[in-house]
Amino acid sequence: MSNIELKRVCVVLVDRANYGRMHTVMRAIQEDDSLKLVTVCAGTMLLERFGQAEKVVEKDGFNVDGKVYLEVEGSIPVTMAKSIGLGIIEFSTEFQRLQPDIVLLIGDRYEALAAAIAAAYMNIPIAHIQGGEVSGSIDESARHAITKFAHIHFAATERSANFIKRMGEKKDFVFNVGCPSGDYILQLDTDLPDDLFNKAGVGADISPNKPFFLVIFHPVTTDYGSEREQTEELLSALNELAHPTVWIWPNIDAGSEGIAKAIRVFREHHDSSWLHLIKNLDPITFQKCLKKTACAIGNSSSFIRDSTFSGTPVILIGKRQIGREHGENLVSVAPFKDEIISAINNQIQYGRYPVSSLYGDGNASKYIVEKLKEFKPYSQKILHYALE
Amino acid sequence: MSNIELKRVCVVLVDRANYGRMHTVMRAIQEDDSLKLVTVCAGTMLLERFGQAEKVVEKDGFNVDGKVYLEVEGSIPVTMAKSIGLGIIEFSTEFQRLQPDIVLLIGDRYEALAAAIAAAYMNIPIAHIQGGEVSGSIDESARHAITKFAHIHFAATERSANFIKRMGEKKDFVFNVGCPSGDYILQLDTDLPDDLFNKAGVGADISPNKPFFLVIFHPVTTDYGSEREQTEELLSALNELAHPTVWIWPNIDAGSEGIAKAIRVFREHHDSSWLHLIKNLDPITFQKCLKKTACAIGNSSSFIRDSTFSGTPVILIGKRQIGREHGENLVSVAPFKDEIISAINNQIQYGRYPVSSLYGDGNASKYIVEKLKEFKPYSQKILHYALE
Amino acid sequence: MSNIELKRVCVVLVDRANYGRMHTVMRAIQEDDSLKLVTVCAGTMLLERFGQAEKVVEKDGFNVDGKVYLEVEGSIPVTMAKSIGLGIIEFSTEFQRLQPDIVLLIGDRYEALAAAIAAAYMNIPIAHIQGGEVSGSIDESARHAITKFAHIHFAATERSANFIKRMGEKKDFVFNVGCPSGDYILQLDTDLPDDLFNKAGVGADISPNKPFFLVIFHPVTTDYGSEREQTEELLSALNELAHPTVWIWPNIDAGSEGIAKAIRVFREHHDSSWLHLIKNLDPITFQKCLKKTACAIGNSSSFIRDSTFSGTPVILIGKRQIGREHGENLVSVAPFKDEIISAINNQIQYGRYPVSSLYGDGNASKYIVEKLKEFKPYSQKILHYALE
Amino acid sequence: MSNIELKRVCVVLVDRANYGRMHTVMRAIQEDDSLKLVTVCAGTMLLERFGQAEKVVEKDGFNVDGKVYLEVEGSIPVTMAKSIGLGIIEFSTEFQRLQPDIVLLIGDRYEALAAAIAAAYMNIPIAHIQGGEVSGSIDESARHAITKFAHIHFAATERSANFIKRMGEKKDFVFNVGCPSGDYILQLDTDLPDDLFNKAGVGADISPNKPFFLVIFHPVTTDYGSEREQTEELLSALNELAHPTVWIWPNIDAGSEGIAKAIRVFREHHDSSWLHLIKNLDPITFQKCLKKTACAIGNSSSFIRDSTFSGTPVILIGKRQIGREHGENLVSVAPFKDEIISAINNQIQYGRYPVSSLYGDGNASKYIVEKLKEFKPYSQKILHYALE
Repeated sequence: MSNIELKRVCVVLVDRANYGRMHTVMRAIQEDDSLKLVTVCAGTMLLERFGQAEKVVEKDGFNVDGKVYLEVEGSIPVTMAKSIGLGIIEFSTEFQRLQPDIVLLIGDRYEALAAAIAAAYMNIPIAHIQGGEVSGSIDESARHAITKFAHIHFAATERSANFIKRMGEKKDFVFNVGCPSGDYILQLDTDLPDDLFNKAGVGADISPNKPFFLVIFHPVTTDYGSEREQTEELLSALNELAHPTVWIWPNIDAGSEGIAKAIRVFREHHDSSWLHLIKNLDPITFQKCLKKTACAIGNSSSFIRDSTFSGTPVILIGKRQIGREHGENLVSVAPFKDEIISAINNQIQYGRYPVSSLYGDGNASKYIVEKLKEFKPYSQKILHYALE
Repeated sequence: MSNIELKRVCVVLVDRANYGRMHTVMRAIQEDDSLKLVTVCAGTMLLERFGQAEKVVEKDGFNVDGKVYLEVEGSIPVTMAKSIGLGIIEFSTEFQRLQPDIVLLIGDRYEALAAAIAAAYMNIPIAHIQGGEVSGSIDESARHAITKFAHIHFAATERSANFIKRMGEKKDFVFNVGCPSGDYILQLDTDLPDDLFNKAGVGADISPNKPFFLVIFHPVTTDYGSEREQTEELLSALNELAHPTVWIWPNIDAGSEGIAKAIRVFREHHDSSWLHLIKNLDPITFQKCLKKTACAIGNSSSFIRDSTFSGTPVILIGKRQIGREHGENLVSVAPFKDEIISAINNQIQYGRYPVSSLYGDGNASKYIVEKLKEFKPYSQKILHYALE
Repeated sequence: MSNIELKRVCVVLVDRANYGRMHTVMRAIQEDDSLKLVTVCAGTMLLERFGQAEKVVEKDGFNVDGKVYLEVEGSIPVTMAKSIGLGIIEFSTEFQRLQPDIVLLIGDRYEALAAAIAAAYMNIPIAHIQGGEVSGSIDESARHAITKFAHIHFAATERSANFIKRMGEKKDFVFNVGCPSGDYILQLDTDLPDDLFNKAGVGADISPNKPFFLVIFHPVTTDYGSEREQTEELLSALNELAHPTVWIWPNIDAGSEGIAKAIRVFREHHDSSWLHLIKNLDPITFQKCLKKTACAIGNSSSFIRDSTFSGTPVILIGKRQIGREHGENLVSVAPFKDEIISAINNQIQYGRYPVSSLYGDGNASKYIVEKLKEFKPYSQKILHYALE
Repeated sequence: MSNIELKRVCVVLVDRANYGRMHTVMRAIQEDDSLKLVTVCAGTMLLERFGQAEKVVEKDGFNVDGKVYLEVEGSIPVTMAKSIGLGIIEFSTEFQRLQPDIVLLIGDRYEALAAAIAAAYMNIPIAHIQGGEVSGSIDESARHAITKFAHIHFAATERSANFIKRMGEKKDFVFNVGCPSGDYILQLDTDLPDDLFNKAGVGADISPNKPFFLVIFHPVTTDYGSEREQTEELLSALNELAHPTVWIWPNIDAGSEGIAKAIRVFREHHDSSWLHLIKNLDPITFQKCLKKTACAIGNSSSFIRDSTFSGTPVILIGKRQIGREHGENLVSVAPFKDEIISAINNQIQYGRYPVSSLYGDGNASKYIVEKLKEFKPYSQKILHYALE
């Protein structure tokens, strides 16, 4: 089969978590005879201070066909908006050049929204992974807006697939395939070198092969201004427990500076011999850590979804993931010291949970590629209620 | 009551049609004691070649508090995308400066989408007029995406209000208020000076006080590339009828150059003594013309909605408004010469239709202001299905 | 010689006049064994309403390797500034992708300034044609700013070359090569079809094979706001003479709407049976017309430079070209009706002037390619005074 | 005198060093009866990770009338270019809103270039401080380009004033006023709290009241890629001396990530008990430290200029300031360990130098305000050679 006839699928990756979820899908596209993988790395994927995950992409044997620098510095609401604007300007140039038949996006970040808008206005069909989920932060609105621009939907749960259909999307284009991160987490061992954390980041001497907590705490953009106080509560709780803790710096959303500041000030004024700070981990290592940690604490969506494949106990703090489906392994608390301490103690006592199939059976990539192959590209969408 | 306590409502106007619909709402806000009107003009509102409707705004006694230049020239898909990007960058600056409590948007244009995204990521609540409607073109997707960013919804029909709720918006924030253009069209006389058309635009000598056709034909962005041929079909049909026809140039969407070219080429090669071309009419005059025309022909959403208040016979051509609710006064045809001719002849024979209340009772402005006053601003949205 | 070793020269074309001047240089690069021509079309080159000169480029057998849409609509000072901003954002993406060894620019337009800044900050050496000239409008400042970013200079006159050196550029990188438009104008015949003008544009029936005036009148950005009145004076003068006149619409600079409006209003209120308006002519045809016209009237820099190769009588109006070197064939007047009429009458009486070698001997392309081949790329410039 | 008649001078501040130099000028403008100070903070002035100097501006009693977020993250050549583009888009909006009569800029940074271009194309006269100097990096080109856009020039040395005139600027608009930083450095005491450094930044315990080295090392953009190796040489040299050293993180230019990485890697692999790292110091404190340090080491332009007012020994490393005028107190070395060590030892042995008047007599602010008051704003520049 000649190159000319291949369906060009442009995968857009906007942060390390995107790649963590998408690499099995990318591999499956790459290995398929009728699809051609085109990869665009954007946003924090390209930034040194977020670990430049684009390099992992290349090391894993994927070409990076386009790079989109779009982050306007500031990490405040107005610069987050401007980053979207710059992103649309830049993505449209890349799509013009790369001429994809389909743009494949995941999730709900503003960078993905920018890519979706560029593609939609250029009449390029959009495939969207993980629509229909529910959460807090502006991501909640962005996710559903992307759904309204997308032409084929790969939901990660049954509920999400139903929600997408209820929003007026045509049934024939909505599929519950599970979360693609399950495709490799289920098989993943948890072998990790003792010096993993110590070689990266700063702070306490912690081995991944002894019990440790894993923390990620992102800002809630719709609650901008409250992040510092919430982080202080979390730090107080952890300080009281003083259990070895690996904390990964937050993403670039508005409010992240407040979180960073709370951590830096805390370290100046407290003995933080239990705390190790890390900029980022490559996707596989991160998943191994999540599989291995005694308890994952914070508000990353990864903690909710990916932990279902390993039964890791999770403490979800605050409103960032409000309404998102989760397994039994997750306990929600408000961002107050005492609640956090009590919840952690309970989770530790309980220990590991059984694996759940809420987010799929580990075949998402296969299902996605099948559907992409069958998919007949179209531009004009219509709210399906009007056709009933 | 001191100024400090006024709720600042920022009305965003992105084209002449926006203002035609919004001026009664703006007046009602301006006259209310607890609201403060802030006006931002954007996009083609500011451009000479689209008639610089911002000047009408000022002449009508409204301040223009912000101006957003965002149109990247080209009128092709990629420049339409880039215009959105530039728009978000610029709207965010204006909102930062003007500090509105609510941003009030109407419709589904890309410029309005840009404003919605800027506001949403800056945690400014969005009020949206005319969500829940259905149409063709990329506007269909943009409209529903704006709904997913909006915090309070002013639908123009019962069906639209229902559709918005079905998409997962909270019932308490969805109101069927009717289309605000009805607020003045119902009362409008049709007195027009004989030389109205001749003083503006170019072409045939036509009086608004003798029977004339009114044409607006916009591109369908999702069908980019087909616009020239469709326009040629329409021109052929009208040429055969050779009835005095006033044609208003299309908007700035991708494809508008193709329509313009079709018209220019037609005029070079045909006797077009029946055709008068106009760049734009001020909103009131336009509505008088729509009330008075023997038949409105084309695909403007205004023809669908506003004609219900006057019973004007309408021929809707092509897919740009597919699925949109309309009155009995409208007949849909495909963009083929013979179909168009036959439909026009039928409409002319039938004559004027009775006024319909499909798009409201002429009190939309009043309802909108009432709801805006009661509205308690909030940032965090959540897909309502998750709360059931 | 393998492709790898070719020096990649990226020619940036930002308007029809650029291409008129550059096509012989492009051909010479294309035909050279050690250089690789890369072409980026930008700005009005891509726009339908300016005649989409990119299509001529392709018809002439050059690839268009990159397209930069950058014009923010408005044609007012603030949108001209924003267009530069957007241009830098876009040019940097293209240069990143195309990886030129040298960027070759011509002239003083804001679009060229945008390209120069993008290249300079990306450490790509810049070759600049037509630096060191003097004129009015913001172009005067932009031209010298480009000189301060450029690494090799191809001046069109001896004086310009001297001025560049006096500004502190290193002698070894400054060459007087003449204006490349001379390379083909000197050989050009003036065969033109009778219906040339009538087939394009609107207005009076004029043959290029009978005496006609040729008019181009651009705004002077630094005198923004005065352009309408000046245009009215010019129109009055021409109206009194009532000689067949072909007028080419102005460029996109701030103020062009004022000129356009003056023309449109004039046509509504006067018998303009002497006036034919044209959007644009392809470069070769334009030069034939300039060679053939009884008198060229206005303020295009082309009238000053290119007319020296043909001895065409020129009337230069206003301050747009103040200080620019010109041949004896040019008479300067202030933008007042009586002065203009009197100057035109004198020029007509005088008739054609002898050809001048002020702007070179018709070998500019050859010289430029020679120097580009020898040029050893470098990034770091230094004001040469400091090395004396 | 009523507000209406005040000349509005818009000071643009783009980094902490700008403000260090400009605050005395700002105060003088603020205190003058016929001038109105308008302040725009841009670029790293607004960024947390560069110390958010805008807050110092406000604490010092100045209004921040406009904020321009423009830094596109990446600190590589292509993002530096894009930042300029975004800057022009944003500055033009601010200038449109603030309507200054004069824009007052300092120096040669890309952010200042963006402001200059926005102002120039909007016909706002530009006053430029510190033109005519010579250095390495792209700043060298940017500085002279700004000169070509500026309408009145405040040079800091006699040589610079002469260079500006030689570049073709009109003598009547070029003034040697000295560097405004001298206006307060000459009077400055060197009282500093013992815990100054320890309270900020990380690393060794160092008192400003015992001998210490002060280091700033910025990338040379035109030598992009070499910065890491050069930083390693500098670190090796300092490590060998192991003298208490306060190192301030570099600016945001392309290459700064390479410098930061060299420092971070060094700290991981060496005992760096002599090294204290600081994000930034407020301008006054910084100048006290520069006055007090045993030796200033690196390539900040501040080290060259400001040290002349205090006689501080300086080691200038590499090509970033090549060609810039300096006092006897400065010794230049290439970025090699041994050269650096030897030069430091020599400087320490020599000790403090006498104060020099090379960069003025401490009355720059007074002179600048006088000239701004007399200045008759104009738009159209012309290369002065053409008028000779």
